[in-house]
Amino acid sequence: MDYRFADRVKQFKTSAISETTEIIRRGKNVISFAGGFPNNQYFPDEALQRAFEQVFASGSGALQYGMIQGYLPLREAIGVKMSKNEIASKPEDILVTTGSQQAIDLVSRIMLSAGDVVLTENPTFLAALQAFSSYEAKVVPVEGDQDGMFPEDLEEKLQRYKPKFIYVVPTFSNPDGKVWSEARRQALLELAYRYDTLILEDDPYGDIQFRPEERYTPLIALDRQRTHVLYTSTFSKSVVPAIRTGWITGPGQIIRLLTQIKEAADLMSSSIDQQALYYLLRDFDLDAHVRMLGTRYREHMQTMQSYLKQLDPATVSWIEPKGGMFLWVKLGEQVDATALLAKAVEQGVAFIPGAPFYVENPQRNTIRMNFTQMSPQEIATGMERLVKVLGQEQRE
Amino acid sequence: MDYRFADRVKQFKTSAISETTEIIRRGKNVISFAGGFPNNQYFPDEALQRAFEQVFASGSGALQYGMIQGYLPLREAIGVKMSKNEIASKPEDILVTTGSQQAIDLVSRIMLSAGDVVLTENPTFLAALQAFSSYEAKVVPVEGDQDGMFPEDLEEKLQRYKPKFIYVVPTFSNPDGKVWSEARRQALLELAYRYDTLILEDDPYGDIQFRPEERYTPLIALDRQRTHVLYTSTFSKSVVPAIRTGWITGPGQIIRLLTQIKEAADLMSSSIDQQALYYLLRDFDLDAHVRMLGTRYREHMQTMQSYLKQLDPATVSWIEPKGGMFLWVKLGEQVDATALLAKAVEQGVAFIPGAPFYVENPQRNTIRMNFTQMSPQEIATGMERLVKVLGQEQRE
Repeated sequence: MDYRFADRVKQFKTSAISETTEIIRRGKNVISFAGGFPNNQYFPDEALQRAFEQVFASGSGALQYGMIQGYLPLREAIGVKMSKNEIASKPEDILVTTGSQQAIDLVSRIMLSAGDVVLTENPTFLAALQAFSSYEAKVVPVEGDQDGMFPEDLEEKLQRYKPKFIYVVPTFSNPDGKVWSEARRQALLELAYRYDTLILEDDPYGDIQFRPEERYTPLIALDRQRTHVLYTSTFSKSVVPAIRTGWITGPGQIIRLLTQIKEAADLMSSSIDQQALYYLLRDFDLDAHVRMLGTRYREHMQTMQSYLKQLDPATVSWIEPKGGMFLWVKLGEQVDATALLAKAVEQGVAFIPGAPFYVENPQRNTIRMNFTQMSPQEIATGMERLVKVLGQEQRE
Repeated sequence: MDYRFADRVKQFKTSAISETTEIIRRGKNVISFAGGFPNNQYFPDEALQRAFEQVFASGSGALQYGMIQGYLPLREAIGVKMSKNEIASKPEDILVTTGSQQAIDLVSRIMLSAGDVVLTENPTFLAALQAFSSYEAKVVPVEGDQDGMFPEDLEEKLQRYKPKFIYVVPTFSNPDGKVWSEARRQALLELAYRYDTLILEDDPYGDIQFRPEERYTPLIALDRQRTHVLYTSTFSKSVVPAIRTGWITGPGQIIRLLTQIKEAADLMSSSIDQQALYYLLRDFDLDAHVRMLGTRYREHMQTMQSYLKQLDPATVSWIEPKGGMFLWVKLGEQVDATALLAKAVEQGVAFIPGAPFYVENPQRNTIRMNFTQMSPQEIATGMERLVKVLGQEQRE
């Protein structure tokens, strides 16, 4: 049978990294820095198990249908959590989602008609691009550097494209791990006001900080009238991925519309997981846990970095991450990272070439390295292999 | 700020029953038959708690990200479950979703462009209409009776509208609780073949049977080439709603596309819930549990029905449900069920007027009564009140 699919499917791109995934899969005993998983060893298993026990102890009503918008005590707890980060948000302005991916998707769904424009960083988060393209939107990248988008290019593109929204990951971005400066955050917000354009602030990694003394103000905290910024985050990195619980907050009018469309999309996210998360936040010191994660992941990152330092800085450069999960490495101008990956996999180590993360003008000599999933010991072994491969490349 | 939403949002209808929900909320001590919840008292709490313990006992890897398509052992178990219902389906042709609502939504997303037509029963499931309208589809109802759609009208509309798919709930439908006859199922499938049109078979209630000796063959089991039927079901009714776990199966090509779009939509459903469900299916006799539910809910239904029998059959009629969760009652021609609801709520009892479930030509003298959520004792008390209100109406 010849299925007659919707127009939006014809433009839909599958994840551009599936090709590299296949290369890695073919390798043997590969230590892979290609993924984006947190480390199992640091999961708060026991606390989470106790939290689920609390749900069952609270009676069978807990297993019934819940609220579309999300379990109210959890939304209150999320409000308290965000207030520590200068974000004031009432429970009625918070929607619980199946990870922050669903938040990105639902925002796209209410905002994007075919041909509408979204402005993004370049490179940017792949799965967000997938969501935008699934609604036939056009993605236009804004030029920038390690401090964030260039205000001049942003303004020019706001004027030219009248985008529906600007998508940014300002704190420890994926893939390149950068942190926007305060000045650039302020400039972005001012331009959003001037051109009356929404910002979708994606903050999955903000909790994973290596410099607790530094503060990175979320854009939504700068948006005092609460009119121009939608903010999404998740418990996938700070608690565990398996509960698939994220949230979005922002202007009340938009949160209400998102809640309506969430009803059509899946009625509600797992309410048993939401209740467990509420008990976890009540009974477990998640702040201390997150500080522990920051300390540990910083050690992972430094182990990884120590190996890169053995190489010629003229052909291997990177900016030390201040948090998050990724180290973004620039190789010699002539290097094609995809070709390099094949050699690396032969030596038993893998990374993700940076090119697929670019909307346009891909820099083929970039690679993304995840330092959270592997243990420090695995990182050491994997990096010894990678240094050999990169050293070889430098000599060629 | 004046938000510039997508076109699809402008056509989006919120649930047409929110008005009646408000009427019911204003009442005091109301016994409500308006909802669509299963009964808490029958939940397999303990078995589910043990299942979650199994997940935690299996190690921290269980709390990591899982597969987009769903936990493989669960998909295998779903395959085994469906095979008891004559549905042969391989794990690779099953996608786990956040309830069957997400399955309906994802099918709509890959199939429906603005203006595309979906054929439905009339009345039909409201939240499916919401999903269709959220993609700017046009819903065209097909005429039918208690045995299913009329093949003549279906064929005429297949010719005239060239619909993208036909949406049906052939076994214990919501709202009207009917079961399609074998002949009508066969006729539907033959017309789907003749006009090369997909069928979306929604089967959330099929497990809840009151006549275990009768068999209602799913449409997908009749579709031997596995080309024209997508089948979705859920564990919300047979296990508990809070785990929000459903699935969809059908032609492999479509399941693969749905899996790609699921990645953009929310990456994956709660994987801790999926694993718990797998252990539940492994260690708990869900078949026996579901038979118990059928026995109990049949008693609920009969209690409800015994009160209706006290009324004048000329002005209160219904067809005894063979399963599911709803009793669909037709009142005297002159009765407006919404006006009646206000009087009923004053007497401490509620139902849902049938009109909002119609795509067109609403029959204002119909009501939908849920018999699962309330206990038999509550049903007796509520029905005494309702009989009083209906008796009053008959005399007027």
